[in-house]
Amino acid sequence: MNLTQSGRRRFLKNTAAFAGLAAAGVRSASGQMANLNAPPSGEKDLHEYGARSHYETSIRTGSLGGYETTPTGPRQRDFGFRTPLQNSAGIITPASLHFIVSHGYDPPDLDPRHHRLLIHGMVDRPLTFSVEDLLRLPSVSRLHFLECHGNSAPSGAPTAAARIAPNATVQDTHGLTSCSEWTGVPLSLLLDQVGVKKGATWIVAEGAEPGKHAKSIPIEKAADDVLVVYSQNGEALRPEQGYPLRLLVPGWQGINNVKWLRQIKLVDEPYMFMMETTKYPSVHPDGTSRWFEFELGAKSVITRPSGGQELPSRGFYEITGLAWSGAAAVRKVEVSTDGGKTWADAKLQEPIARKAHTRFTFPWTWKGEESVLQSRCTDETGQVQPTINVIAKSLNIEVDYIRKTSAMVGDFNAIQPWRVDRSGRIQNALL
Amino acid sequence: MNLTQSGRRRFLKNTAAFAGLAAAGVRSASGQMANLNAPPSGEKDLHEYGARSHYETSIRTGSLGGYETTPTGPRQRDFGFRTPLQNSAGIITPASLHFIVSHGYDPPDLDPRHHRLLIHGMVDRPLTFSVEDLLRLPSVSRLHFLECHGNSAPSGAPTAAARIAPNATVQDTHGLTSCSEWTGVPLSLLLDQVGVKKGATWIVAEGAEPGKHAKSIPIEKAADDVLVVYSQNGEALRPEQGYPLRLLVPGWQGINNVKWLRQIKLVDEPYMFMMETTKYPSVHPDGTSRWFEFELGAKSVITRPSGGQELPSRGFYEITGLAWSGAAAVRKVEVSTDGGKTWADAKLQEPIARKAHTRFTFPWTWKGEESVLQSRCTDETGQVQPTINVIAKSLNIEVDYIRKTSAMVGDFNAIQPWRVDRSGRIQNALL
Repeated sequence: MNLTQSGRRRFLKNTAAFAGLAAAGVRSASGQMANLNAPPSGEKDLHEYGARSHYETSIRTGSLGGYETTPTGPRQRDFGFRTPLQNSAGIITPASLHFIVSHGYDPPDLDPRHHRLLIHGMVDRPLTFSVEDLLRLPSVSRLHFLECHGNSAPSGAPTAAARIAPNATVQDTHGLTSCSEWTGVPLSLLLDQVGVKKGATWIVAEGAEPGKHAKSIPIEKAADDVLVVYSQNGEALRPEQGYPLRLLVPGWQGINNVKWLRQIKLVDEPYMFMMETTKYPSVHPDGTSRWFEFELGAKSVITRPSGGQELPSRGFYEITGLAWSGAAAVRKVEVSTDGGKTWADAKLQEPIARKAHTRFTFPWTWKGEESVLQSRCTDETGQVQPTINVIAKSLNIEVDYIRKTSAMVGDFNAIQPWRVDRSGRIQNALL
Repeated sequence: MNLTQSGRRRFLKNTAAFAGLAAAGVRSASGQMANLNAPPSGEKDLHEYGARSHYETSIRTGSLGGYETTPTGPRQRDFGFRTPLQNSAGIITPASLHFIVSHGYDPPDLDPRHHRLLIHGMVDRPLTFSVEDLLRLPSVSRLHFLECHGNSAPSGAPTAAARIAPNATVQDTHGLTSCSEWTGVPLSLLLDQVGVKKGATWIVAEGAEPGKHAKSIPIEKAADDVLVVYSQNGEALRPEQGYPLRLLVPGWQGINNVKWLRQIKLVDEPYMFMMETTKYPSVHPDGTSRWFEFELGAKSVITRPSGGQELPSRGFYEITGLAWSGAAAVRKVEVSTDGGKTWADAKLQEPIARKAHTRFTFPWTWKGEESVLQSRCTDETGQVQPTINVIAKSLNIEVDYIRKTSAMVGDFNAIQPWRVDRSGRIQNALL
């Protein structure tokens, strides 16, 4: 993962490389010594379990939405909190900043000593598993991204306006994806243990929160790379991520990854839950909609420099971002700094894992001209991230329809352009 | 990273695989529903920046040590806090649980807007860099472990007793190593910018804490894979890990990885700091000691089942642990469950990165017999993790010397045996 010789030479050859960077020469680094007389409060606790610096203020953004009245009583509204990708580095999202989409419920308070996962339905031997049971079984650890299928969609009430606004940040546009190292037990192993009966073609997974979110998943996927996960980034799952157990369905729309997992039922048809039949299918202009779409497309976005940021001076900037695909590993990321006229390969950071975020970097020198920065992902299956125009064409709709309608267009993976104006200000240039 | 067919068959063929696991059959998972009327306090903050479940109590262990009187006034004692490896999963250590070794000082309160890194000495152009400057430069993200060279050493006052005790946990014995995804700028790039003068053969790196820990490092290493790091696991470095900047010296003794980095000076000889000449060199029985040892050896340890834990019943258990080497990537980990009489290859989890922890797993069925579990790492250079007897022989000392002396024997990478007795209790069996 060293800079290649040619890459380094390209960087160093550029005499403007450090313009605006270190012009001040030697400055004293004093004045920042610790004050030994004022230890931080709760010092002992921070040695036991640390916290970030009080200077760091990057947070998830979103709103809880409150409650709505329904015939059966008050119901907590859906809500989403977005990862601050503009401050991301590498491919790991800190658990504290992992995006949250919840269909109405804050994390239930599940005691891992009492929580059980039940696997039943069309099986030979229904079984329950405690967390401790699962910890004894063969485990795998894998790098995988999660993504809400509405992530980056330029439509969908009530937040579309914020996402297509010129001042949208990458957190606003793409903050509903995150990547972690997940550890758990392959679901295939548990299915082997319960003995799947002939004719069982789907699983239905259900959470333990009051709303009992449930999802139908074809058994081919369930027996492929799906995990029952108990750990994220080296420690127990966080409550917002399904503590103590969640389903991890690599590369598929976030909604499949059932949190607070309490049962998996083997069945012979999908159960047509509300989320599968009303909320999530994309409605097209001709009134049809696509049901049971699962796999997320090849996608990428530049995280820095990005919308809402400002270049303080001309000179060298590393362009960096994330790429991923629900189908495979990322093969290539190209970057354009001239609005798509010319493209060049970005450098990919290792590790490059299947169905995981991949970090890319690209050297760029800004000479003060207006520039449009964008990235394009190609995955190992050959899928190439499209422009918004290509997507509109393939759906047989006008870009204008995408701009104006609040109907959900999910699985939107268009190239994201950021416009740098002559003052260095960066804006969303998708529409 | 799927279980191999043969591995799965081996697991499933074993009819005792689930003994003691799911015997209870179908149990209700009710009674764990959330209480909507009692939302957790600080709820809003947890959506912005999450925290772990209140059921999770795994912590770093250690003690601050207080202050000692010196001719120049009170001095904070050295202290160490250990990572709870018994609860680890995958290879990422959560930043909140990363081990801490500090030579006398809690994190200084450094404001990243004002902090500067100065590179000077035998250079053409001394330069300072702010954190923002560094964020503009070509970056790399890498998985690397850190390890205190005293980690797992069965001697060294004042904590040797706890480490060689039969009831020592893997946190007690091996908790001074952790692994993260680090992001920063290659030091080689910064050295190219300042222009290293002929004759400069070492760098001296210094921290901004009151004690100004400093370390001499040969320039060959500095120009190889050393990083100036600003990010750990996707967010800013934690204060205990050097916020806002630290040196990352892959594969070398922890003490080289200067935290709160404020200056790097190019010099023509090592500076013989106290830590290099008195505290860290290993003293041998003949009175000689080794100076300027750097690279950590091939090492591994079983993290579960491990010391202090108890097997609740006979049946299947996955044995899992971590392996690493300061020289290269891990090539192979073998596991023995019979005290070293027979060995078999463990499965290595991807990613397997150079100078990073690698997670290994091994299926095991406990039939109630006394067992001694241990793992052995071989790295890509062919280095094989030795037994304590082999280490003693190579140092021309008796194992008894290692047991009894409190003289520091650093870089101790012996195979760690855990003894399981007939009741299922697990104890440290090193000595």
